[in-house]
Amino acid sequence: MTEPFELTATKALELIDKNKLSYFEWIESCLGRIKIREPFIKAFSYIDYTRPIELAKKCDQIKKKNFGIPFAAKDIIDIEGMPTQMGTPFYSENIPKRDAGSVAIAKHNGCIPIGKTVTTELGHRHPGPTVNPHNYEHTPGGSSSGSAAAVAENMVPIAFGTQTTGSVIRPAAYCGVIGYKPTYGDFDKSGILPNSPSIDTLGLMARSIEDILIMRNILIEEECLLNENLNINNIRFAFVKTPYWNKVDDDTKVHLENFISNLIESKVNVEEIDLNNLILESSEIHKKISGYEFKRSISAERFHHYNELSDILRNGRLSDGEKMSLSDYHYLFDQLERHKHMINNKVSSYDCIISPSALGEALNGLEYTGSPVLNTTWTLLGLPSITLPMFKSKNNLPIGCQFISKKADDNNLLSISKKILLEFS
Amino acid sequence: MTEPFELTATKALELIDKNKLSYFEWIESCLGRIKIREPFIKAFSYIDYTRPIELAKKCDQIKKKNFGIPFAAKDIIDIEGMPTQMGTPFYSENIPKRDAGSVAIAKHNGCIPIGKTVTTELGHRHPGPTVNPHNYEHTPGGSSSGSAAAVAENMVPIAFGTQTTGSVIRPAAYCGVIGYKPTYGDFDKSGILPNSPSIDTLGLMARSIEDILIMRNILIEEECLLNENLNINNIRFAFVKTPYWNKVDDDTKVHLENFISNLIESKVNVEEIDLNNLILESSEIHKKISGYEFKRSISAERFHHYNELSDILRNGRLSDGEKMSLSDYHYLFDQLERHKHMINNKVSSYDCIISPSALGEALNGLEYTGSPVLNTTWTLLGLPSITLPMFKSKNNLPIGCQFISKKADDNNLLSISKKILLEFS
Repeated sequence: MTEPFELTATKALELIDKNKLSYFEWIESCLGRIKIREPFIKAFSYIDYTRPIELAKKCDQIKKKNFGIPFAAKDIIDIEGMPTQMGTPFYSENIPKRDAGSVAIAKHNGCIPIGKTVTTELGHRHPGPTVNPHNYEHTPGGSSSGSAAAVAENMVPIAFGTQTTGSVIRPAAYCGVIGYKPTYGDFDKSGILPNSPSIDTLGLMARSIEDILIMRNILIEEECLLNENLNINNIRFAFVKTPYWNKVDDDTKVHLENFISNLIESKVNVEEIDLNNLILESSEIHKKISGYEFKRSISAERFHHYNELSDILRNGRLSDGEKMSLSDYHYLFDQLERHKHMINNKVSSYDCIISPSALGEALNGLEYTGSPVLNTTWTLLGLPSITLPMFKSKNNLPIGCQFISKKADDNNLLSISKKILLEFS
Repeated sequence: MTEPFELTATKALELIDKNKLSYFEWIESCLGRIKIREPFIKAFSYIDYTRPIELAKKCDQIKKKNFGIPFAAKDIIDIEGMPTQMGTPFYSENIPKRDAGSVAIAKHNGCIPIGKTVTTELGHRHPGPTVNPHNYEHTPGGSSSGSAAAVAENMVPIAFGTQTTGSVIRPAAYCGVIGYKPTYGDFDKSGILPNSPSIDTLGLMARSIEDILIMRNILIEEECLLNENLNINNIRFAFVKTPYWNKVDDDTKVHLENFISNLIESKVNVEEIDLNNLILESSEIHKKISGYEFKRSISAERFHHYNELSDILRNGRLSDGEKMSLSDYHYLFDQLERHKHMINNKVSSYDCIISPSALGEALNGLEYTGSPVLNTTWTLLGLPSITLPMFKSKNNLPIGCQFISKKADDNNLLSISKKILLEFS
């Protein structure tokens, strides 16, 4: 029999609606799952075992549509009363009195915060303790490591992550869940530690497209529906191998190329397009903007806790930022404007880009959360992107496929994603 | 004899450098001034009388260039250990464990935080208790009410404010100090309550251009100099009356027109240009973007404290935001892009715009902090602007004049401002 913790939020809400499940049973089951699995997975930096039970009981009295979904949030996102430690050892007593905007919106819709999920140090690269649920010796990816692992391990149906480069898409792909980064600006970021505010995006992890849609609708405070009549043969796909294709492992290449062949066989419109030079340029612009903004955003840590920061951070994005001047920074936005126009011109005749989510399966070892190079361009451009858990590597680890759509075309992206999962995975 | 609290930071640092003043004497004098004047001015929501003295003693041992400036920050900006109450009654126990990025940068340069200054409710319009130091029955302006009043009353030489519409320029003009809003993006905003993150700008209040420059240099972590050889006759000025000129009071009109005549008599290049339709369009775009973003940024208060919020807020920016959809919001950024190009085309042949800072002197009464209509366009466009305390009304209240320069041309704006104050006020 299926345990409640295994259910997607959509399925659980359906059962609750039919009086076949109570919120109390659902939340208790998730908390029970966490109690048993957390010692192995280490997905959480903080877990609340008591308040969610009380809230579940309240939900059982209220029973509203799409109400009362348990969720967890990456530990750079403030939840009132739970410590925001940001993957550092020096903020254990940092207990916010104010919910992040998106957390407040979710709570208003009855959503029940279960805990804070492990983030890499300040959302940069230095890893936390989380392991990949599919093989404990492999990285879960980062920086939203705990969010991906918690959803993959059926501890919560939905978790919040954030992405400045590839921090939602990559861990979701490595852990075999859906990772969704909306159009830049769709979800509020008040109360979330900025990394690079011009690029940072709050995103979601879940185990079904419907769950992503429910939480998206809650966060944007609108009621959008999927296009259930979408005909995949009317969608114009562009396949983008990127300049990093030669670094993509063979497993991923074969799976992706087979998928493209299947699409073509099914008379789906797919063209391979070459954006290599533009993607390399994105990388340069992203590195500089995110470096400069990161250096400033983490000034409290840079100046008050420098000696407690990792070498990876000090020699990584912080060092990138320290090479920049304010006038370089302003100039980059003009460059970014031109860059966006050039890419948009190249892709304007397509509805959806297909590209690998990561260079391959989750890497062996917990020291390195993997490369985000396949996500940088889409994050920099603020385009909605999603990774779908479509394939398995020879080592039986998940491999994701990334889909990117036009700005503000998120609903179409989710509708396409649903069809792809139904018809091609 | 001049008391230390009366000194600009530049002058005090000069005396300290010559061993004619100690940090201890300076800070003690400012705190003494606050103790005596605060009961009348009500500029602060929190004052620290002990730690600044300790820090001053440390500065006396270190003595570095431009080190150890006392400052205060608007109470939506986090300073570790001091409550961030945001002009609300429900955050008295909200004591952050982490400095705002710009506060951390300032502290790293020895700057000494004296306290938190009164803000309107959540940085919107509902006023705090602060009065105008020039006439206690008049508003100090807002939302950075306490910052302007504290600097005007010689309680601190420099204070941080923020501007989403006219929240730095207007209170500075009303209180007769310099108010400076840099180019959008120049100063870090981590740890500052967002109102409308696409527009919000951290700004400064001070009593001299040199003080603005020193703090700007600290916050951008660069060492810029004023152009002391600037010839005002080489500057191309545009005089913009705006569509609100008929609402500007006569005092302000006469002073501003006299100033323009003086410039022309001095062979300074000034042309009046008409941006009326564009400024009206700015206003519409600003209202919608800031409304939508504000609604989301204050979700914690909207959902957890709705009944404790003022009617002004609920019926003001919050209500503006509630009329918008996400697709309206995205569309507005395309509109803003075109709008920016149109204004930039109209003003590209000028170095500096001259325009009134506010509709007139500070209004009688403390209920309304005044209209920001003369600041909206420049804030929306992210252009650097400054108000200089150049005139006095018939009621002996300060009247400011606003100067706006091109994006990222802040140093030129400060250099022009210095010349204007020297030669024309």
